[in-house]
Amino acid sequence: MPTFAHAPGEPARAREPFGQWASGIADRVERALERGLPDALTVPQRLHEAMRYAVLGGGKRVRPLLVHAAGELTGAPPSALDHAACAVELIHAYSLVHDDMPCMDDDALRRGKPTVHVAYGEALAMLVGDALQALAFEALARAASEGASAPATVEMVGELARAAGSTGMAGGQAIDLAAVGRMLDREALEDMHRRKTGAMLRASARLGALCGAPLDAVRADALERYSNAIGLAFQVVDDILDVEGDSATLGKTAGKDAGSNKPTYVSALGLEASHELAQQLAREAREAQRALGPAAQRLGEIAELIVNRKS
Amino acid sequence: MPTFAHAPGEPARAREPFGQWASGIADRVERALERGLPDALTVPQRLHEAMRYAVLGGGKRVRPLLVHAAGELTGAPPSALDHAACAVELIHAYSLVHDDMPCMDDDALRRGKPTVHVAYGEALAMLVGDALQALAFEALARAASEGASAPATVEMVGELARAAGSTGMAGGQAIDLAAVGRMLDREALEDMHRRKTGAMLRASARLGALCGAPLDAVRADALERYSNAIGLAFQVVDDILDVEGDSATLGKTAGKDAGSNKPTYVSALGLEASHELAQQLAREAREAQRALGPAAQRLGEIAELIVNRKS
Repeated sequence: MPTFAHAPGEPARAREPFGQWASGIADRVERALERGLPDALTVPQRLHEAMRYAVLGGGKRVRPLLVHAAGELTGAPPSALDHAACAVELIHAYSLVHDDMPCMDDDALRRGKPTVHVAYGEALAMLVGDALQALAFEALARAASEGASAPATVEMVGELARAAGSTGMAGGQAIDLAAVGRMLDREALEDMHRRKTGAMLRASARLGALCGAPLDAVRADALERYSNAIGLAFQVVDDILDVEGDSATLGKTAGKDAGSNKPTYVSALGLEASHELAQQLAREAREAQRALGPAAQRLGEIAELIVNRKS
Repeated sequence: MPTFAHAPGEPARAREPFGQWASGIADRVERALERGLPDALTVPQRLHEAMRYAVLGGGKRVRPLLVHAAGELTGAPPSALDHAACAVELIHAYSLVHDDMPCMDDDALRRGKPTVHVAYGEALAMLVGDALQALAFEALARAASEGASAPATVEMVGELARAAGSTGMAGGQAIDLAAVGRMLDREALEDMHRRKTGAMLRASARLGALCGAPLDAVRADALERYSNAIGLAFQVVDDILDVEGDSATLGKTAGKDAGSNKPTYVSALGLEASHELAQQLAREAREAQRALGPAAQRLGEIAELIVNRKS
């Protein structure tokens, strides 16, 4: 027995430095993705090879970090969180594969590598995305055998499906498509991004929390405010980096959005106001984090990471 | 109280003529799809309009019939079956939208109407498919609030995800892609179709059964044999109709598969042997149906429908 017991909801590893905690989570989620993806010797081999190419060994894994950080609020079992983290990361990976295709953004470079349709052809890239979405729900269903309750798992499935679907991420993509070449005001931009990126970041936090004991209404509301703030902050920073970053650091083509005449926060508000908005959203996230108590330490650190990242 | 009580698992409507029962199920599933799809006034409107275009008012609804018929084996609540039926039909509809795209089969006609990418463009067609897949899982999660147990609903999610994913339907598509221009033997053809169409037909029957009381091992095994038989029969008949049918009756381009050099049962076995195979599979389905008892009447009638259909 330790001499000083931790307060409930504040696990021992909350004292590791953030970087160490985050790379530990990224490692364990990478291993879970490795295990969850069919190996490249399983028929159809080329599809499985391409799925692994699309998912493994890259990405910031922000969504898995959110899942695990939110799971600390509710004392969720880490192995259930791994399945939920795989689910959100697989949805994210599928969306990148489809977004990069010629009929969408037509991007050749992603995470410093040729995009899936460049490496494997368009038809297989479409199937890779389709199969990764299915695998996300398969992974999520497994959370129920790792300590998440069956009713909470059913709730998670609904949550993930709405976040990924036509009023969430896919809907945000459709609005984005229709907006090319048009000027959106800040409200319309926010609505688009709340769906396109925000919905899945919010779902990541909610799924993490749902893997454990139920949150009371006050803390559920604070988690919602936290998620909304970091969801928008993520996109504002993305738009800033698209202008200020370079392709080597980003691992994707810089200046792409501005060049393809897409509405961005920078084009709508200017660079300085975009920086200010990012800082304001960071303050909102911190305020919500305080309302969530000491177990929300990791959520606060993730908010800092999102706002201060360089890629 | 009725004078003559029905045997357990044999509901009153089992006495309706099959055609009447089937059109009743098709109607109620159509209404459930209507309710489950966001209306065309909900943002993003064009995406929702295209999703409704892809799903509503067409199709044989074979998978929903299987869901409801299998549900009669386990006394499943019809409203839970409606959600499971929507789920399998939404997966089916998404797969058609993506299969028809230029990078896949490049088909212009489906159910007698222009395909989604012809009507709405490629980018939106991809998003329609993506969003319909997500909506399928959202629909399935709702079965738990209509009388399916939460653990069974979690099992259904895993089942649907595997049937739709890389070792099921999407995997069958990938094998199909790689097979164009090659000659497959009967075993390789069966493996492909077991994934491409068979997996989702099997999942339809299993989902229907899972909405009710658990099946014992003997009947679960018989349902599996039934599903395997009708799954293959469906494809054999499809290949026969591709040769013998005409576009007007089929509502899609006849001779397409033969013309595009795809391996089919007809090209592998010849027309006569394909007809014989369809009849043999029908006998296997009937034998499994008898093992399932009187509550499997509808399953038997669906097997006849699959083998004797003209479109």
